[in-house]
Amino acid sequence: MSLLVVGSIALDSVETPFGRREEVLGGSATYFATAASFFGPVRLVATVGEDFPEKHVAFLSSRGVDVSGLERRAGRTFRWKGRYEFDLNQAHTLDTQLNVFADFKPELPAGHRASEYVFLGNIDPDLQRQVLDQVRSPRFVACDTMNFWIESKRESLLKTLQRVDMLFVNDAEARQLAGEHNIVRAARRILSFGPRALVVKRGEYGALFFTGDHVFASSAYPLPALFDPTGAGDSFAGGFMGYLASREQEDVDVMRRAIVLGGVLASFAVEQFSLERLKTLTHDEIRARYAEFRQLTHFDDLEIDLFGREAGGR
Amino acid sequence: MSLLVVGSIALDSVETPFGRREEVLGGSATYFATAASFFGPVRLVATVGEDFPEKHVAFLSSRGVDVSGLERRAGRTFRWKGRYEFDLNQAHTLDTQLNVFADFKPELPAGHRASEYVFLGNIDPDLQRQVLDQVRSPRFVACDTMNFWIESKRESLLKTLQRVDMLFVNDAEARQLAGEHNIVRAARRILSFGPRALVVKRGEYGALFFTGDHVFASSAYPLPALFDPTGAGDSFAGGFMGYLASREQEDVDVMRRAIVLGGVLASFAVEQFSLERLKTLTHDEIRARYAEFRQLTHFDDLEIDLFGREAGGR
Repeated sequence: MSLLVVGSIALDSVETPFGRREEVLGGSATYFATAASFFGPVRLVATVGEDFPEKHVAFLSSRGVDVSGLERRAGRTFRWKGRYEFDLNQAHTLDTQLNVFADFKPELPAGHRASEYVFLGNIDPDLQRQVLDQVRSPRFVACDTMNFWIESKRESLLKTLQRVDMLFVNDAEARQLAGEHNIVRAARRILSFGPRALVVKRGEYGALFFTGDHVFASSAYPLPALFDPTGAGDSFAGGFMGYLASREQEDVDVMRRAIVLGGVLASFAVEQFSLERLKTLTHDEIRARYAEFRQLTHFDDLEIDLFGREAGGR
Repeated sequence: MSLLVVGSIALDSVETPFGRREEVLGGSATYFATAASFFGPVRLVATVGEDFPEKHVAFLSSRGVDVSGLERRAGRTFRWKGRYEFDLNQAHTLDTQLNVFADFKPELPAGHRASEYVFLGNIDPDLQRQVLDQVRSPRFVACDTMNFWIESKRESLLKTLQRVDMLFVNDAEARQLAGEHNIVRAARRILSFGPRALVVKRGEYGALFFTGDHVFASSAYPLPALFDPTGAGDSFAGGFMGYLASREQEDVDVMRRAIVLGGVLASFAVEQFSLERLKTLTHDEIRARYAEFRQLTHFDDLEIDLFGREAGGR
């Protein structure tokens, strides 16, 4: 497999009802690459400043992430500061310092241009297309976006959507992008913009997966302790794309397992701050939680005689 | 089977973004009994005023609902007036006129006292226990409640909870009752109050089912058109209890199917105003939507070779 991710690397300062951390490893590309790395190698394209701790680069390399596309520039690394209240579904941004990320111009090393699977993290949709212009013939492209781009660069975003196979958004973003409150109708409208598949992430409620003729509802794993939701969406996308790329198939059954694995990776990511939980995660734990997701959601067919002799009619 | 429901019958005036209806049939006992009636006979205990249209009683009878416990008193029937915004998860009450429901003292006809399955709709917890005092040896008792009773009659509610097998609440109510935001920990705390099972209803996101050692997550069916959420929770409970009573089993696999059938009945109830959709519903449609719920949520086991030769380790 060859899986490429382009996105942000950040130093996050996060406050939740359960504690706080200062300047810990974060960013969309970081969470995505780490989650995807459980399924195979990942190529990462991102930018950091002179102040970015070398230990974080060493960590990514140790996970099998190819960091040859990681550009280190003069200046400071992207900083994000946020707070979550008890309703952990909603991040409150306290401060954003783009720093070197403000001038991010993704440049793919020659070896990355033949990547088959591509994930465009949540960056300016103009840049997302500049990445695609550099990839020769991608097999499956997915992208993320956010309310900021939906509002401020809608036309550019629509151009990007015409060139991707799949979009990952949360439910508020789906509604905003479609201009439609009902999520089923919103999904149909977004699919009409170009992608052939859509994932609507719903935080603690799970995710919905839509194609033109198909819907899959995945539940989130109900966690008794959830520490830090930062990176949940990118870990979800990383689990999804990592699995897909390792299978090299995109039929609907593979996609369903990929969605569940996305939920598995996200459920681990939020158990501790930053990448802490993903750093200790094992394949055995991924398998076990996948089995728990099955146990969580499985139910049998109805009995044939349910409605007695009237079966088949009212 | 013998299934008893005690609750409200109301004339509802409802406004949603999709239309409005004045003084249509509503009430917890009405939705519950109609939904449960697809699985077998139901005994209803409730009160209405002199102005209650006879056609509604005739409808309930036509569904196999035993209305011998329906008391008609001098005065007006309970009225509820509410509005839903685009976020249909949240009802805004505009007006409540309790009328004859204010003096509701549930009196069970002699024949109802041997009921095996009992559903205590959302009424004063004192009254819920007065009902239980009249039932000789119920096999399975479930109850509903709401924020009003959790706030104003907490001690009484806790006494009721010690006598029921199962509680149905929505997620806000579960959090409020437990004094705990995390839903898994809230569920554990509520189970410590007495019930051996708990359903947490989450509107368009589905439902969670908890016992002491078991969790089941059921997705809601994503509907492209949802007209009126009034009665969804009671239709859910009716589908659940109707199925359980028809099976006369309470093992976990039966409970899981019951939860899904609750979701099926609720998904139909909200497709039109008032009881309109349940009035035309057929057994075939219930079976078909149950099969769609399975299709919606099914996914396969992971491949044995997923993590290659390293399988079993990281």
